[in-house]
Amino acid sequence: MEKIRIGIMGYGNLGRGIECAVRQNEDMELTAVFTRRNPSSVETVSGTAVYGVDRLLQKKDEMDVLMLCGGSATDLPRQTPEYARHFNVVDSFDTHANIPQHFAAVDQAAREGGKVAMISVGWDPGMFSLNRLYANAILRDGKDYTFWGKGISQGHSDAIRRIPGVKDAKQYTIPVESALASVRACENPDLTTRQKHIRECFVVAQEGADKARIEQEIRTMPNYFADYDTTVHFISEEELLRDHAGIPHGGLVLRTGKTGINGENNHVIEYSLKLDSNPEFTACVLTAYARAAYRMSREGMTGCKTVFDVAPAYLSPMSPEEMREHLL
Amino acid sequence: MEKIRIGIMGYGNLGRGIECAVRQNEDMELTAVFTRRNPSSVETVSGTAVYGVDRLLQKKDEMDVLMLCGGSATDLPRQTPEYARHFNVVDSFDTHANIPQHFAAVDQAAREGGKVAMISVGWDPGMFSLNRLYANAILRDGKDYTFWGKGISQGHSDAIRRIPGVKDAKQYTIPVESALASVRACENPDLTTRQKHIRECFVVAQEGADKARIEQEIRTMPNYFADYDTTVHFISEEELLRDHAGIPHGGLVLRTGKTGINGENNHVIEYSLKLDSNPEFTACVLTAYARAAYRMSREGMTGCKTVFDVAPAYLSPMSPEEMREHLL
Repeated sequence: MEKIRIGIMGYGNLGRGIECAVRQNEDMELTAVFTRRNPSSVETVSGTAVYGVDRLLQKKDEMDVLMLCGGSATDLPRQTPEYARHFNVVDSFDTHANIPQHFAAVDQAAREGGKVAMISVGWDPGMFSLNRLYANAILRDGKDYTFWGKGISQGHSDAIRRIPGVKDAKQYTIPVESALASVRACENPDLTTRQKHIRECFVVAQEGADKARIEQEIRTMPNYFADYDTTVHFISEEELLRDHAGIPHGGLVLRTGKTGINGENNHVIEYSLKLDSNPEFTACVLTAYARAAYRMSREGMTGCKTVFDVAPAYLSPMSPEEMREHLL
Repeated sequence: MEKIRIGIMGYGNLGRGIECAVRQNEDMELTAVFTRRNPSSVETVSGTAVYGVDRLLQKKDEMDVLMLCGGSATDLPRQTPEYARHFNVVDSFDTHANIPQHFAAVDQAAREGGKVAMISVGWDPGMFSLNRLYANAILRDGKDYTFWGKGISQGHSDAIRRIPGVKDAKQYTIPVESALASVRACENPDLTTRQKHIRECFVVAQEGADKARIEQEIRTMPNYFADYDTTVHFISEEELLRDHAGIPHGGLVLRTGKTGINGENNHVIEYSLKLDSNPEFTACVLTAYARAAYRMSREGMTGCKTVFDVAPAYLSPMSPEEMREHLL
């Protein structure tokens, strides 16, 4: 069997996750990892060769799909259009508001290069988006809800760490159970920000720091915490490392809707994820879409694609006959 | 806006559901209902014209998609290949074991006729199949579980009604909560038939019938009940009509799996449906796939398709730009 040759650009949590995911897919093999750091300073979990980013174009013919593992703030807006001229690529661009302009830039580059570029792959955007689309197409008269958590929010944890007197911190986003129950009961609640999620913070204070002031600064921080019911726990560094070292996340997408001649019947569609490792799960989704990018490119397709544009069959290593027999 | 013109072949619960669903889709209109009964004996819920099945081919140019609402046992194996030569069609063929031969027959007919034929659309097969495929493509090292219910099983209710002394009956299939909890906890249980579902029966006995004998016959009925923990309640006809008149159903598809260099992280993907009306929800799914059949046919595609072959974007009435902005 000819294997799909995967390259990884950027070796952080997501890149490591992709390295692990490729090992679980028998029809794929990892060619190389590329980094902007000094390659000799990067050790991969399974001994994959590491090169500086300057070697990327030289190795173009050794890869079928390049996985872009940079951040959405500054890396991907530049990298995805640049690399989509030369490679089939997959990225996890997740700045919702900027997706239209990212799509346009990547689409032009991928068309000019004759490549397939999958953007905004992961779980939100990604699997959650798919579930919103399917549920909306089915239940036309209904209402959508997305809840995140329980899980670590990196941005909110970082915001706490920037407060003077804070040594380290982790922040969990948690759906409000009563809100979820109301949605599932088809009560169609209109939920405020505060009614949907609570925020729980575990903070390691520097010695002698004013904990009351830190707690107050967290609770009143605009955008991040002021609109939420926020709990702050001060714990030791040992406790933080012992009990909060993971990167769990997850969430739920629900749509409730009515059918019948007078809307007399209610329906609930619910999709949920409980993830021990946010980056490893995201990596698994990107890896499945790498298979799709490879196949769609082989069929002659080009341009920017999102999860909405990919027929599910492209994601599975099974043949169409096997899929119909075992999964349908 | 040019509307997608829908025809309905067969006017039972599913056909009525499609009539209601089309009314919820602004880009569609219902052309006609076709029946094997005397058309003058059929009254549609929204006054749609009813014709005998002999008029179907005459009206060919008035419909973009024909919805086949017959049963999987005898209707669809004959109807879908026959009509796929002349119409884009959607069916809900759900005899899993016979899908390969149904696919082959329909594919040949649809290709010869230059039409698109969507088969096995609904929630299982259908949305549950999609969720099995997506979850398997993402979590490669994992285990699948499908639970059905709580809901009415038509086949099991019919089986009870055939027992001498039974006037009427309804049977609910119910997932076993402890089994679900074990799956969600990533314990990867191997579950027997008995461990996954219980069966609860509400039976109206004829006057003077031997209830102990009826209960015994139900509990020991091979294939239907013998392998399950089955509860039998005898109730009055009034109670059956009052409390068990609906056709609710639903269920869950779960996949749990491991990621990481040593499989150290667990993940749970769960999709669930809670449906007040099984046929009306199924009808909504078929209606969304009618939109896809229409669009794929306009793009020149032909042949038999399943939900695996349909890019999600084809299902939504939104433009690609709207989808990316509002759903991604």
